[in-house]
Amino acid sequence: MRIGSFERIMGGVCAPNDFLASGISCGIKENDKLDLALVYSESPATAAGAFTTNKVKAAPVQVSQSIVPATGVKAVVINSGCANAMTGKRGIEDAEAMVKKVEELLDLSPGQALVASTGHIAEYLPMEKIESGIEKAVVELSPGGNSDAAKAIMTTDTYPKELAVEMQIGGETVRLGGMAKGSGMIHPNMATMLSVITTDMQLSETLAGDMLKKAIEWSFNRISVDGAQSTNDSVLFLANGSALPENYDVSEDDKDIFFEALCWLTANLAMALVKDGEGATKLIRIVVNGAADDAAAVKAARSIANSNLVKAAFHGEMQGWGRIAAAAGEAGVEFSQDDLEVKLGERKIVSGGIVTDRDSREIGKMLAREEIEITIDLGSGNGSAYFLTTDLSREYVEINAFDKS
Amino acid sequence: MRIGSFERIMGGVCAPNDFLASGISCGIKENDKLDLALVYSESPATAAGAFTTNKVKAAPVQVSQSIVPATGVKAVVINSGCANAMTGKRGIEDAEAMVKKVEELLDLSPGQALVASTGHIAEYLPMEKIESGIEKAVVELSPGGNSDAAKAIMTTDTYPKELAVEMQIGGETVRLGGMAKGSGMIHPNMATMLSVITTDMQLSETLAGDMLKKAIEWSFNRISVDGAQSTNDSVLFLANGSALPENYDVSEDDKDIFFEALCWLTANLAMALVKDGEGATKLIRIVVNGAADDAAAVKAARSIANSNLVKAAFHGEMQGWGRIAAAAGEAGVEFSQDDLEVKLGERKIVSGGIVTDRDSREIGKMLAREEIEITIDLGSGNGSAYFLTTDLSREYVEINAFDKS
Repeated sequence: MRIGSFERIMGGVCAPNDFLASGISCGIKENDKLDLALVYSESPATAAGAFTTNKVKAAPVQVSQSIVPATGVKAVVINSGCANAMTGKRGIEDAEAMVKKVEELLDLSPGQALVASTGHIAEYLPMEKIESGIEKAVVELSPGGNSDAAKAIMTTDTYPKELAVEMQIGGETVRLGGMAKGSGMIHPNMATMLSVITTDMQLSETLAGDMLKKAIEWSFNRISVDGAQSTNDSVLFLANGSALPENYDVSEDDKDIFFEALCWLTANLAMALVKDGEGATKLIRIVVNGAADDAAAVKAARSIANSNLVKAAFHGEMQGWGRIAAAAGEAGVEFSQDDLEVKLGERKIVSGGIVTDRDSREIGKMLAREEIEITIDLGSGNGSAYFLTTDLSREYVEINAFDKS
Repeated sequence: MRIGSFERIMGGVCAPNDFLASGISCGIKENDKLDLALVYSESPATAAGAFTTNKVKAAPVQVSQSIVPATGVKAVVINSGCANAMTGKRGIEDAEAMVKKVEELLDLSPGQALVASTGHIAEYLPMEKIESGIEKAVVELSPGGNSDAAKAIMTTDTYPKELAVEMQIGGETVRLGGMAKGSGMIHPNMATMLSVITTDMQLSETLAGDMLKKAIEWSFNRISVDGAQSTNDSVLFLANGSALPENYDVSEDDKDIFFEALCWLTANLAMALVKDGEGATKLIRIVVNGAADDAAAVKAARSIANSNLVKAAFHGEMQGWGRIAAAAGEAGVEFSQDDLEVKLGERKIVSGGIVTDRDSREIGKMLAREEIEITIDLGSGNGSAYFLTTDLSREYVEINAFDKS
């Protein structure tokens, strides 16, 4: 499938040259579910990362954050089932021990392995299981291990999320792959989602960091399932450059091609996270136009995307125009209610702050769809932004009140 | 019942001298439910108000906000069943017509009557019903009409909320009464709640406004059911001074006595709103201590009180300490996770950022209670604040997704 200047391919994080992966079960989760993933680059990679902005950061976040940005990185180890958060000094030691075990077995130097965890907060890692799990994961590393790795990082996700694309840069085929997990707590600013992105593109530390930051701002930071930020969110990005000759001179055109592919990949992984949000039955795209500036548009879109009342209205397929307007109105951005417009798909529903279309049967049909786009125009400038969200269902409450998975 | 320097009495908004009220049915709601309330002061009153900060303000909010602060106010008319919000110019005309009808029938001058509405957004008021309703409400005004008035302002509330107290000031008995409605959309900054507070205390415009503002900050602005701000929230405060001689010189002591009573009344009305929150099965008091300052404490407490994950955990009586810590951590306030303490009631659960008490049976018993207090110490200063919230239940989703009441 051709998309812009790139093409979608199979292979997830193993699609780029020299990347191997594995996903194994080491007994953190019950019933032999996969719970430990390893991604390994045979050639040293430039690594960039983006992490939760929560003041309460899990131990693995602190450890990986102390390593990236870096060059020479070769491995990422991730466990699910236990977040290693709120675990104090012992948690840091455990995260460091995970890194060390990977370094030993793969013959790496300090600083060449990264770590991430996801799962229950306030529990210590079962280090014996993890260490023998890492041994198993190293043995099982393979160029086809991407799907097992994507499964091993899942928590309440109902399916693994991975994607890969290839493009032509400097006469060579450059590949970009990624996997992600999300589900509960998904929210702007990297909340309980993990993602590993791999490429055989050649990127400097600065370029890798800049591109990742921008791509995340337009993807993982524009999604919301329940408005919560997690202690563990991490996106780790490895670029080993193996598709291109050493010291290849990356042109502005090359950068543009690669950045377009990176944005597509992260946006589509983010959309997959929202679709698989806890209890979600609908994917809702909130577009805000006409804000004073883009930052104001993001604020308004986020406020609507996080509103329980708006999300519950979508769940019930109710005409919640007042709820949408009220959510925009409490976002703390300037606009006049008399200029407010709301569209459902291409259909204008609110004009001049008043509901002007009350054809309930037609609108009801549109609200019954699984994917819904709402466009709000604030009439106060040229700022625009989008946000992806889900409906709020009784299942969400059930999962988060009664199920500890 | 004696509380501090005041005593609880019956009578709601009619408890103070010279106040009459009525609550009638005029057909906005189905099944002859009460849907229009009138509060009338036989002597002119100083009036103060506090209104939603939402950019999308209902027409009655705009009309009342243009009148207060004021002296000489004598009436407040409130309808439920229709919010008269997102109704443009016609909405303003309708709200003004309500005020005018009250003025005509009670022989008042412009500026002597206030208006509020609550109910569905984006619908026009049925003005014929409302105008004949106002006629009926004027006829039915009585010193015992407080309970009908409190019922007539209800929407999804399951019971009316009213309170009154009396105190001694200047050798006279001064009375203070109030009614409130809330339920959905309850949130700091006056979200979908209406309240009318009456007193026969003598207060200047400035004093009435200052006291109301402070009392609201510590009561209605510290509660949250679903984090949403409504288009219609209004607190209207009338002080007719009839308990005291004209030109009575209000001393600092008098002010203190009255302010204490006002704070008690608004705090208890606010608590009643939370207890009756949509789908709520528990009342949760979040106390934050040790913040850098009080403002930071409010931010942290609000973030915890509004977290769906925290609220769902309380609903399921789960030990959601990680969710509480994460919600504090994403509040945008400074603290170190290594200093974090969390108490359930008097029991310390988290110490130094680590869960130190894992006696699940004992803790489970405490979480099974209907009223729960959680105290979080951020260890970074002397700021403190509290917030009242509820659990998040499947019933909340049901009410807001499928029920239009």
